[in-house]
Amino acid sequence: MGNSLGNIFRITSFGESHGRCVGVIIDGCPAGLPLTEEDIQSEVDKRRPGSGPASTSRSEEDRVEILSGVYNGRTTGAPVCMLAWNRDVDSSQYLENRFLPRPGHADFTAFTKYGGFNDFRGGGRFSGRITAGFVMAGAIAKKLLGLRGIEIMAYTVEIGGIKARRAELDVIRTNVDASALRCADPAATEQMLQAIEKARAEGDSLGGIIEGIALNVPAGLGDPVFDSLEGDLAKALFAIPAVKGVEFGSGFSASTKRGSENNDPFAIEDGKVVTLTNNAGGILGGISNGMPVVTRVAVKPTPSVSQDQETVDMEKMEPATLSTHGRHDACIVPRAVPVVAAMMAVTLCDFAIMAGTIPEVIR
Amino acid sequence: MGNSLGNIFRITSFGESHGRCVGVIIDGCPAGLPLTEEDIQSEVDKRRPGSGPASTSRSEEDRVEILSGVYNGRTTGAPVCMLAWNRDVDSSQYLENRFLPRPGHADFTAFTKYGGFNDFRGGGRFSGRITAGFVMAGAIAKKLLGLRGIEIMAYTVEIGGIKARRAELDVIRTNVDASALRCADPAATEQMLQAIEKARAEGDSLGGIIEGIALNVPAGLGDPVFDSLEGDLAKALFAIPAVKGVEFGSGFSASTKRGSENNDPFAIEDGKVVTLTNNAGGILGGISNGMPVVTRVAVKPTPSVSQDQETVDMEKMEPATLSTHGRHDACIVPRAVPVVAAMMAVTLCDFAIMAGTIPEVIR
Amino acid sequence: MGNSLGNIFRITSFGESHGRCVGVIIDGCPAGLPLTEEDIQSEVDKRRPGSGPASTSRSEEDRVEILSGVYNGRTTGAPVCMLAWNRDVDSSQYLENRFLPRPGHADFTAFTKYGGFNDFRGGGRFSGRITAGFVMAGAIAKKLLGLRGIEIMAYTVEIGGIKARRAELDVIRTNVDASALRCADPAATEQMLQAIEKARAEGDSLGGIIEGIALNVPAGLGDPVFDSLEGDLAKALFAIPAVKGVEFGSGFSASTKRGSENNDPFAIEDGKVVTLTNNAGGILGGISNGMPVVTRVAVKPTPSVSQDQETVDMEKMEPATLSTHGRHDACIVPRAVPVVAAMMAVTLCDFAIMAGTIPEVIR
Amino acid sequence: MGNSLGNIFRITSFGESHGRCVGVIIDGCPAGLPLTEEDIQSEVDKRRPGSGPASTSRSEEDRVEILSGVYNGRTTGAPVCMLAWNRDVDSSQYLENRFLPRPGHADFTAFTKYGGFNDFRGGGRFSGRITAGFVMAGAIAKKLLGLRGIEIMAYTVEIGGIKARRAELDVIRTNVDASALRCADPAATEQMLQAIEKARAEGDSLGGIIEGIALNVPAGLGDPVFDSLEGDLAKALFAIPAVKGVEFGSGFSASTKRGSENNDPFAIEDGKVVTLTNNAGGILGGISNGMPVVTRVAVKPTPSVSQDQETVDMEKMEPATLSTHGRHDACIVPRAVPVVAAMMAVTLCDFAIMAGTIPEVIR
Repeated sequence: MGNSLGNIFRITSFGESHGRCVGVIIDGCPAGLPLTEEDIQSEVDKRRPGSGPASTSRSEEDRVEILSGVYNGRTTGAPVCMLAWNRDVDSSQYLENRFLPRPGHADFTAFTKYGGFNDFRGGGRFSGRITAGFVMAGAIAKKLLGLRGIEIMAYTVEIGGIKARRAELDVIRTNVDASALRCADPAATEQMLQAIEKARAEGDSLGGIIEGIALNVPAGLGDPVFDSLEGDLAKALFAIPAVKGVEFGSGFSASTKRGSENNDPFAIEDGKVVTLTNNAGGILGGISNGMPVVTRVAVKPTPSVSQDQETVDMEKMEPATLSTHGRHDACIVPRAVPVVAAMMAVTLCDFAIMAGTIPEVIR
Repeated sequence: MGNSLGNIFRITSFGESHGRCVGVIIDGCPAGLPLTEEDIQSEVDKRRPGSGPASTSRSEEDRVEILSGVYNGRTTGAPVCMLAWNRDVDSSQYLENRFLPRPGHADFTAFTKYGGFNDFRGGGRFSGRITAGFVMAGAIAKKLLGLRGIEIMAYTVEIGGIKARRAELDVIRTNVDASALRCADPAATEQMLQAIEKARAEGDSLGGIIEGIALNVPAGLGDPVFDSLEGDLAKALFAIPAVKGVEFGSGFSASTKRGSENNDPFAIEDGKVVTLTNNAGGILGGISNGMPVVTRVAVKPTPSVSQDQETVDMEKMEPATLSTHGRHDACIVPRAVPVVAAMMAVTLCDFAIMAGTIPEVIR
Repeated sequence: MGNSLGNIFRITSFGESHGRCVGVIIDGCPAGLPLTEEDIQSEVDKRRPGSGPASTSRSEEDRVEILSGVYNGRTTGAPVCMLAWNRDVDSSQYLENRFLPRPGHADFTAFTKYGGFNDFRGGGRFSGRITAGFVMAGAIAKKLLGLRGIEIMAYTVEIGGIKARRAELDVIRTNVDASALRCADPAATEQMLQAIEKARAEGDSLGGIIEGIALNVPAGLGDPVFDSLEGDLAKALFAIPAVKGVEFGSGFSASTKRGSENNDPFAIEDGKVVTLTNNAGGILGGISNGMPVVTRVAVKPTPSVSQDQETVDMEKMEPATLSTHGRHDACIVPRAVPVVAAMMAVTLCDFAIMAGTIPEVIR
Repeated sequence: MGNSLGNIFRITSFGESHGRCVGVIIDGCPAGLPLTEEDIQSEVDKRRPGSGPASTSRSEEDRVEILSGVYNGRTTGAPVCMLAWNRDVDSSQYLENRFLPRPGHADFTAFTKYGGFNDFRGGGRFSGRITAGFVMAGAIAKKLLGLRGIEIMAYTVEIGGIKARRAELDVIRTNVDASALRCADPAATEQMLQAIEKARAEGDSLGGIIEGIALNVPAGLGDPVFDSLEGDLAKALFAIPAVKGVEFGSGFSASTKRGSENNDPFAIEDGKVVTLTNNAGGILGGISNGMPVVTRVAVKPTPSVSQDQETVDMEKMEPATLSTHGRHDACIVPRAVPVVAAMMAVTLCDFAIMAGTIPEVIR
């Protein structure tokens, strides 16, 4: 339970970090969408560990295979099952520390919930690797949204307290793919890289903030009161490991503003109702208002650190010390960036199909 | 669509601000729970506008009636339908400004989504008044959780940038109900009241931050990856009008911490695994870890201000100026406090029933 | 749990036989549909006990009230809550026989499932009276379907083994409303009435078969493999108390036919693909094929009989004899006819909205 | 959409007849269940075409692979993904007749619904082969139910109008696996085999009736009014291709009985409430009553016949004649028998987990 998301465009995640594969099924994908494995691969590659200091050295090939739902290069309306087989996995350290839950990880809660039967190797279902499946689903969602001109971008705006400067959309489009940290501000990227290197050298890790933006979202998406656009986006985003906060528009900073300042005045532009500011982040009353949908996501520092940590032995029920010295991302933020975009895409695609913005058959 | 929430303990909201009533149905409420209208009433009264400067003067009686699902003073296992009839409504101003959407409100998006057929009077479905139904559902959820010793509290921690000091649980229990702003810090309450009064005098409004905490939540609640405890709590909380951000534990501040600092060390206390800090906010990998579940919710300043605002005439499609001079809450935060508690309770109750923590029949 | 049905057009049933009311909420009703209480009332009146020998003498007024979701005579897109208050209820006999489950009724299973806390008076949630709410929802669904020319009819085809002759659609349209048994064959009606009178005189009851038909259903409705049109219709129809079988097209008789005989040949008529026979009942592979959707529903004889019956005392756990001498329908079939139509309408409406056949806003 | 079934124990079907594979995901499978690929294989083998005259000659190996959700021989609580790769497929005939829908098949409706993008080869998603995935899920459900002593059996009771005699449970247990037609009556099997051979020789096909029975189902399963045990079982059973009718207990024959005859008297046996007859098929008011759950399913004659059939050319929109001479099952009934058992198991397992009868962790 709990591994499906969405109403009409519904994704189901499966697989484990050190199991045979990670994958996803999309049910409700419109028929007729041109789709190749390369379309998916290029998105999945974005979350692959790079060569920069932020990344692990694990060589994940992540070759995406489409198992169903595509015929003659187009989706058929049937469930699309996609996966990547796992390779290059060494589980020995996990077996050794089987009963010593890593602080900040899901080892303890998974052990408790699943009676110790969970596949703990590499974090199992709780590994960031699972998000490869999210990105596969997001790749299809992005293609569908693209048919209606809806564009999703995500990028790093803060790491270890270092803030990127605000950038124009075109700068973001240009810079993010080029940045080792998926940040649109090259100067900040440089500083962030140094901070990450410093943390890594000290056996430590850094967190950060990712911003996601969706352009050309038509007004009217969202089904309040409970299936609000904010609520469903937040739910999707909190499925990304390490996310501990989600805000829209002016978000937490709205709490310090006055109403007269936070309200976005309406105006008419090219015959369309727009707002002159976007403190609402494109969402009013849980429904898109036609302005860019803007969200920011807080990512905690990756809990895998190379320092000794206090923990307990769950078998013997006694205090223990955990020493891990494997390869770890010292900062998971850049790898989470395409996942944020994917979860936004999946959620918006569901609403767009429900609203008829994207038809059930693409001709 | 979109007016139901939950899987096993499932609530459905109905009613409008100036319609006949606001209410809620709970499907999946365990049988055998002792329940009276007074149990519900006392919770609903908490969100009633008080006499303080933060509140409107609208005299809402909000007499709760239980229409179904209770027999001989106990729940029967059948859907519990509860409502409060609406009274004292003057819709004239809304009729007058029918085509002038109020900035920051859902008028424009609702008009767009529902083709202008939405009941716009008093904000209709998008009014804070709808949350009376949430609180009714929350009252039952709190009773059910209480059977297992699970306690939910919510309180104001910040208004207009004024922060309350951290308080012990006992202080919170004592002070919040007594505070006009549902804040545990009397000194901060005083300052906040002045700030609200000033904003009101200037025809403006303030936002703030509410903290919610759930005690004695057993480890193991939450169904990752998508029905994570964070995800489902966030989705429920974003249904509250004016909420623009949700975070758990160290939340956004985690993004500036190091892993070694943010990780909560495990320890054993009274034969139970605990963490020595609670930066995780009681949730690891989307599953409760037995520590207090802690969330913070950003509430934007209420968009109803008494200053002239730029808007558009949606009928004539031309710029317009909106002048509203009705009674408004200058700060909606204190009234949202019991709603935050209600949404936490509803969500946790759903998980607790699913996990068997709360049985299907209360004996 | 279990009191909601549908995906996009989603109904939630509430209320009990001897409680305060019976009602229903529709979430996902398109905005803009002209709707009055009279529209609903006229459908609900069809299941009211008539003056014929098949019916009880209970004077149910069943005045429908719309509590939400309608403004200015049109639906608003918000949940439509409708109910009828209960009147004229004498629960004394039920209190007396509290622990003696009536054979064929849900008394025993409800007692077991809900730990004895179920509202047993008049059958509580398991009373046929609950279907008044189904019919309210069906009334709206029928109006929506009617906008696209989709017409739903239901009628009695068999009672107590007496079969009505097949009738043309026009004859059905004319005769059913005029028949005390909602049967299109006046001669059969006469025989059935005598059989019912005989059964009643002997303290007994009769069952029968209802046929439902949906005309002008466009090809393409249904979401196989699991949300097939047959599957979802069957699920909806089995919610009607006393229904023990559901079939489509040639149904059970298909099991004795050869493929060459049961297959419906395709042909072209008025530029449209049709089938020359309709053994498929308008459904192939779980998807409508454009031909009339035809279902037949087996209704067991109402379990309320005036003869002594063997039962047990659930409190003392000893054998007991049950003697009931209240007013009962000797044959519930005619009253179930409008409910069959309602459940077909509700299910088809859900699929039609999902497929875009019915838009989200009616202009 | 539509390829998932269940609430807590939720299956998602994927794959096509001539695609890469057919498979299923189970989400919500309790952790700790011992499970091997052989456990699944032995169930899937039951629907493999045998050597008898009823079967095709296609050599399907159907080697089941478990891709996720199992570690160290036990389920982990994570989604269990299982599949069988497709082999030995010749799609040429399907390509040739691409635009000529086969009467009685889903070719026309799938073409219409999915805009011609559906994978039509071998019937694609509408092939009986898809049910291999249902049986994989059923294999796990049966193991889980078995932990609580719940046993599911299914068997052929009628083919081509030839009825098997009623058999005792022990006879059924012994005879069904030995029968080429999965029928407990050897004499009837012989007659049925001859009838099938005759139909095949004439290029025709036969249908039949399958009975399913579930023993030791505890009283209390089912969530009326809409998630009734009958409704959810029927929905699951109608997902099996060729099923056109479903009934419970006395089913359609109840319509000719009197109430006094159809009601099952209650009695006490071994300190438990039982009924002396089982016309209810173990279900009262949509809830199991502790007696065997009995359903019967009408299977239409397989629409694949070797006679010329009238159809249309969907591209040219003109009449056409279809001549197919491939290998076909002349009677699909015996192969559908294990699928009926699987769908019953999957549905009952969902209810049993929901009710706590089967725990979330198997220890």
